[in-house]
Amino acid sequence: MLGNILGERFMIITFGESHGRCVGVVIDGCPAGLHIDESYIQYKLDLRRPGQSIVTTQRKEEDKVEILSGVFNGYATGAPICMVVWNKDVDSSAYESIRDKPRPGHADYPAYIKYKGFNDYRGGGRFSGRLTTALVMAGALAELLLRYLGIEVLAYTREIGSISMNDVTIEQIRELRYSNEVRCPDISTATLMKDAILNAKHDGDSLGGIVECIALNMPVGLGEPIFGALESDLSRALFSIPAVKGVEFGSGFNAAKMKGSEHNDPYTISDGRVVTLTNNAGGILGGLSNGMPLVVRVAFKPASSIAKKQRTVDIKSMSDTDIVVPGRHDPSVVPRAVPVVESVVALVLADHAIRAGMVPPVIGECSGYKQG
Amino acid sequence: MLGNILGERFMIITFGESHGRCVGVVIDGCPAGLHIDESYIQYKLDLRRPGQSIVTTQRKEEDKVEILSGVFNGYATGAPICMVVWNKDVDSSAYESIRDKPRPGHADYPAYIKYKGFNDYRGGGRFSGRLTTALVMAGALAELLLRYLGIEVLAYTREIGSISMNDVTIEQIRELRYSNEVRCPDISTATLMKDAILNAKHDGDSLGGIVECIALNMPVGLGEPIFGALESDLSRALFSIPAVKGVEFGSGFNAAKMKGSEHNDPYTISDGRVVTLTNNAGGILGGLSNGMPLVVRVAFKPASSIAKKQRTVDIKSMSDTDIVVPGRHDPSVVPRAVPVVESVVALVLADHAIRAGMVPPVIGECSGYKQG
Amino acid sequence: MLGNILGERFMIITFGESHGRCVGVVIDGCPAGLHIDESYIQYKLDLRRPGQSIVTTQRKEEDKVEILSGVFNGYATGAPICMVVWNKDVDSSAYESIRDKPRPGHADYPAYIKYKGFNDYRGGGRFSGRLTTALVMAGALAELLLRYLGIEVLAYTREIGSISMNDVTIEQIRELRYSNEVRCPDISTATLMKDAILNAKHDGDSLGGIVECIALNMPVGLGEPIFGALESDLSRALFSIPAVKGVEFGSGFNAAKMKGSEHNDPYTISDGRVVTLTNNAGGILGGLSNGMPLVVRVAFKPASSIAKKQRTVDIKSMSDTDIVVPGRHDPSVVPRAVPVVESVVALVLADHAIRAGMVPPVIGECSGYKQG
Amino acid sequence: MLGNILGERFMIITFGESHGRCVGVVIDGCPAGLHIDESYIQYKLDLRRPGQSIVTTQRKEEDKVEILSGVFNGYATGAPICMVVWNKDVDSSAYESIRDKPRPGHADYPAYIKYKGFNDYRGGGRFSGRLTTALVMAGALAELLLRYLGIEVLAYTREIGSISMNDVTIEQIRELRYSNEVRCPDISTATLMKDAILNAKHDGDSLGGIVECIALNMPVGLGEPIFGALESDLSRALFSIPAVKGVEFGSGFNAAKMKGSEHNDPYTISDGRVVTLTNNAGGILGGLSNGMPLVVRVAFKPASSIAKKQRTVDIKSMSDTDIVVPGRHDPSVVPRAVPVVESVVALVLADHAIRAGMVPPVIGECSGYKQG
Repeated sequence: MLGNILGERFMIITFGESHGRCVGVVIDGCPAGLHIDESYIQYKLDLRRPGQSIVTTQRKEEDKVEILSGVFNGYATGAPICMVVWNKDVDSSAYESIRDKPRPGHADYPAYIKYKGFNDYRGGGRFSGRLTTALVMAGALAELLLRYLGIEVLAYTREIGSISMNDVTIEQIRELRYSNEVRCPDISTATLMKDAILNAKHDGDSLGGIVECIALNMPVGLGEPIFGALESDLSRALFSIPAVKGVEFGSGFNAAKMKGSEHNDPYTISDGRVVTLTNNAGGILGGLSNGMPLVVRVAFKPASSIAKKQRTVDIKSMSDTDIVVPGRHDPSVVPRAVPVVESVVALVLADHAIRAGMVPPVIGECSGYKQG
Repeated sequence: MLGNILGERFMIITFGESHGRCVGVVIDGCPAGLHIDESYIQYKLDLRRPGQSIVTTQRKEEDKVEILSGVFNGYATGAPICMVVWNKDVDSSAYESIRDKPRPGHADYPAYIKYKGFNDYRGGGRFSGRLTTALVMAGALAELLLRYLGIEVLAYTREIGSISMNDVTIEQIRELRYSNEVRCPDISTATLMKDAILNAKHDGDSLGGIVECIALNMPVGLGEPIFGALESDLSRALFSIPAVKGVEFGSGFNAAKMKGSEHNDPYTISDGRVVTLTNNAGGILGGLSNGMPLVVRVAFKPASSIAKKQRTVDIKSMSDTDIVVPGRHDPSVVPRAVPVVESVVALVLADHAIRAGMVPPVIGECSGYKQG
Repeated sequence: MLGNILGERFMIITFGESHGRCVGVVIDGCPAGLHIDESYIQYKLDLRRPGQSIVTTQRKEEDKVEILSGVFNGYATGAPICMVVWNKDVDSSAYESIRDKPRPGHADYPAYIKYKGFNDYRGGGRFSGRLTTALVMAGALAELLLRYLGIEVLAYTREIGSISMNDVTIEQIRELRYSNEVRCPDISTATLMKDAILNAKHDGDSLGGIVECIALNMPVGLGEPIFGALESDLSRALFSIPAVKGVEFGSGFNAAKMKGSEHNDPYTISDGRVVTLTNNAGGILGGLSNGMPLVVRVAFKPASSIAKKQRTVDIKSMSDTDIVVPGRHDPSVVPRAVPVVESVVALVLADHAIRAGMVPPVIGECSGYKQG
Repeated sequence: MLGNILGERFMIITFGESHGRCVGVVIDGCPAGLHIDESYIQYKLDLRRPGQSIVTTQRKEEDKVEILSGVFNGYATGAPICMVVWNKDVDSSAYESIRDKPRPGHADYPAYIKYKGFNDYRGGGRFSGRLTTALVMAGALAELLLRYLGIEVLAYTREIGSISMNDVTIEQIRELRYSNEVRCPDISTATLMKDAILNAKHDGDSLGGIVECIALNMPVGLGEPIFGALESDLSRALFSIPAVKGVEFGSGFNAAKMKGSEHNDPYTISDGRVVTLTNNAGGILGGLSNGMPLVVRVAFKPASSIAKKQRTVDIKSMSDTDIVVPGRHDPSVVPRAVPVVESVVALVLADHAIRAGMVPPVIGECSGYKQG
């Protein structure tokens, strides 16, 4: 059941359901001695939290992290770290209707067949975007580890529907991406994006978009050949986020239209370091980081839950019917997906940093420790 | 070192280098009793073989499969199956020059740093596209298993550079994709694509492109929630193919510009089965197959090895310099990548079919077998 | 970090510490549709619970199981099942003294060095026998699955110190093993064993012993060649129980003194089935179950925590010193280990039953389910 | 199919059959830069080779190692290392008879049922002791890695049948264990053991025995809590060797008869290091190495293949019958098992050394390497 596991040395397994008791994660491989800044985990959870703004679902969850194991006196002990948030604002009443009428765009139908009806269908159960809470808790921990290495991960909304942001500086990305509800560091475009989402909401519809993520101060040599390629592990993790339809690195799909002489990034020496003059590679060559910024873009489809009436079937009677999807929805999942993408990228980089031997098994020494 | 492993129940690990003794693969989990059609494995290898046409590298390899274990009297025994092809037309003389001058677009530089110079750099070593031979051998076996389930996997060249094929029927895809050197089932466009590749070759340059792959007769319920999502495992495998820069399913990146009411695929009953009227999902919902055709597109960058002089650095002296990349190259990797994409998709689907309990542990019974 | 994982298809990962907030387990791979009998899980926990009798530690824990995920309407959903028991009667005050003075026989010293002092040392932390609570919760679930296959797992105390039980019938084992505090189905010997434990307790000392476990109604063909041998996976799991020093199957160490003509179990036909006349193999040949009862014996050392003063060192001053181990202890871990051994054997057999394709991916159908 | 894999960071997967084309192993995770001393691998293979003395089978195999990948200019490259020995002296003619008449003590019967007759039954196929050749090749590599850390692994024959060796010094073990056919460092007892084996051979019978293995210069902290305990991983690996019936560490089964005050190893300071005055723990506490010598004993049953007529069944007719087992046999597997035990212990220790962060990802630097 490795399919429920992400990572090899910084490994996570998630549990919980949208309308169950909680959503949780067990992290194995966090080096002993890492200072666990609980407030940072909470900060990241708050960025993902439902009900935080006009462009998100109105489900109200406190999403307060509880650490159940693996941390002692504020430091990781080397034992598995279990963290949970409890589900509190659960309204499952609306979901009885979807048992037999699968919602278009959701996992309802294949899940019903796969599990022969035993799956927890309330709010999408295990398939709900709510499960990304687990990724954010674990990802915040991964970010704390990456800080130790100086690696910085920054995601932001690049496109909402047909609206695309203008290029901005790294500093603007760092400072401004969380300054607005849509998480776009190009402030004027952010306003347009917000309007577009609100319009879609007003129409009972939803919008998709693109999240871009960069990682700065990357070391050379993260990743492994073939199936351990950085793109392989990153894309596996990114496609585990609900609503993702595409992942591309660097030049991405545009590479298909380029010539080799345009696409190859020439090397040069700068400040005594080997760098490339362009970054079509998105920081990865042969599956290994080359020291340039990692660049990945993630396409999100428009949220499947919309207020408009849709065509579906009644599985019991095997006949065509209509559905108006119940529940409280995000008119676009993109804004809340930004911290999730950040988390997922951090998780994969942290894992590979450990695999590459760049992190000691224990970080620092406990006060009072003496070599025995 | 799970990074060198693909699959959980139909698992492969590859070995070998471009200019070493061989390229090989060990497959674990092939159900006992599967008839191993060696000629089909060879057929798929021949489709990938270098030197087969005017649009591929002129390296001449026989690439004749040898099965070293796990097959007895023509049937899988349930033990690991090891298969190799021996490298015969190796010319490493040209590669001494690249030890210190990393080729732009290749793994040379990060590999050199990661392995502190111990990696086999000849012909790209472990990072070479030659390693995809292992994927094709294993993938052919996976296809034999999928046939048992009735699943068919078809890949083809969708775009070369700026040239895009017109839509064709499934029958045309099945019959025509391997009828021309570029592996495009739209015959008239195939001619244009071939010309474009030859022009690029003439210019000492290279072209990228897009390979599309569909899987037909998909059962409902392949895949697992979260990290075992079908998109997750497919993308991980696809990004392990050298030169891949992007992967998208169904509507893919275009989904970002759509509204929910456009994107959601409505359900209906057809011939007593639940189907969707459109297939923006590309056959996957919540990470699970929904019974509709699987549709995935893979963007390939232009081949990194080009005849033109390129800017690089000399690592020994840490100074700027030029390089003309030695060796024999593909002006576009796309045509030879088509059977590789087919193989990789087949490997992932075979693994998930076993994981979903759709394949018995032993297929059929050996002649003469009696329950003891 | 697969080292924290047991099993491949029925997989568990544990978390928690002796004096932390809880002990928990996540089980992945439990087939959807398995009826989760919470009262059976609690029954098994009660058999392991501290403070239950005069021969166990006096730490009082309610050890009431809480299921946090993966169960809906009383049935497994196919999603990971997380279960916890909360630690309530924690008295860590006594443990400050052991930070610098490692207790003989415990993990204190190597854990201190390995984790550079960051490990949670209170009550042994992650190394405490309390962690076996997680094994019992998961093992009870595995037993529920094995019942579905008709497999029965029975463990019992074979020896305490120098006192060995007489052979009894299967029926006696089934009925009587939990009828007394020492879990020995030979009632008269059980009394002697209890006295021996109480004498050791009175002396401030402890006793070891041997737990035997049998599995009845075994199918033929559980297990896999080489590293997936049933003995391999069982021994790995059994040695994860604290205080285990030896594991043997069937004839075990006595086999070393036998001749092949004595040891080989001759086959015969009985009631139309292939059986062996003796069972020196302990039900396993070539790593595979052969249909005869599985027989495994597990040697436990005497509990390391004793009231007597012992010689140790002060790590801070690197000088010799004495210690009287604080805390509340079991004078013999064997009686409480019996349900743990049962659990661990059940976990491995359940995993192998799924791996061998003997369990459908979904057990039964949900009321109201209709094939879509 | 992790069941065919040993190790997590120094990982091996084996392939091949007794009477197939070869026996091979793929090792993943060998650090780049390790000097691969092919002659040492061959030396260890020669110690295991059949036909080497009067007490072994007369099958003649050259067992010459061929390295197919992962080594370049004599050093590991960081890529998977594939090694094979080719089977040459195969005589399968005798094995037709066993298809329907399972040999007592062998895997024939459960394998036939598990694989429904598709398994390669010749010479035991995948279940043959010949597969340990793969363990020895990989183990030799592991020993080369352990040398880098100063760890030394020494196995030797402790008992043959009822004959037990006298205690000898470490120096005698190191120098004398391979000086005689039975691999016992107590020379005078070795002669008695040899006679006992020859007597058994003369009688058409076989003998079992015990192999003891010690590891010297152990670091503190190898191993991980719970399922990654050193005993767990060692026992899993040791039970994968055919004919093993029991594994014990330190005091082992004898611990069951001891009191805590006798069994606990007191700490003291010696030469500025923390050591224990006794070693009942066998060098492992809480699953972690404590710096004292690792001590493990492995019980081997008498070889199952004997010349005497034995009782079995005919599976086709489901009736009782007799069998005289064909083929060439070892009258005791113990002497040839000694280097296998050494290999298996080395494999587990090498894996854990890497997992514990005690080995750099690359050992040394390649001549000519410069940080880029």
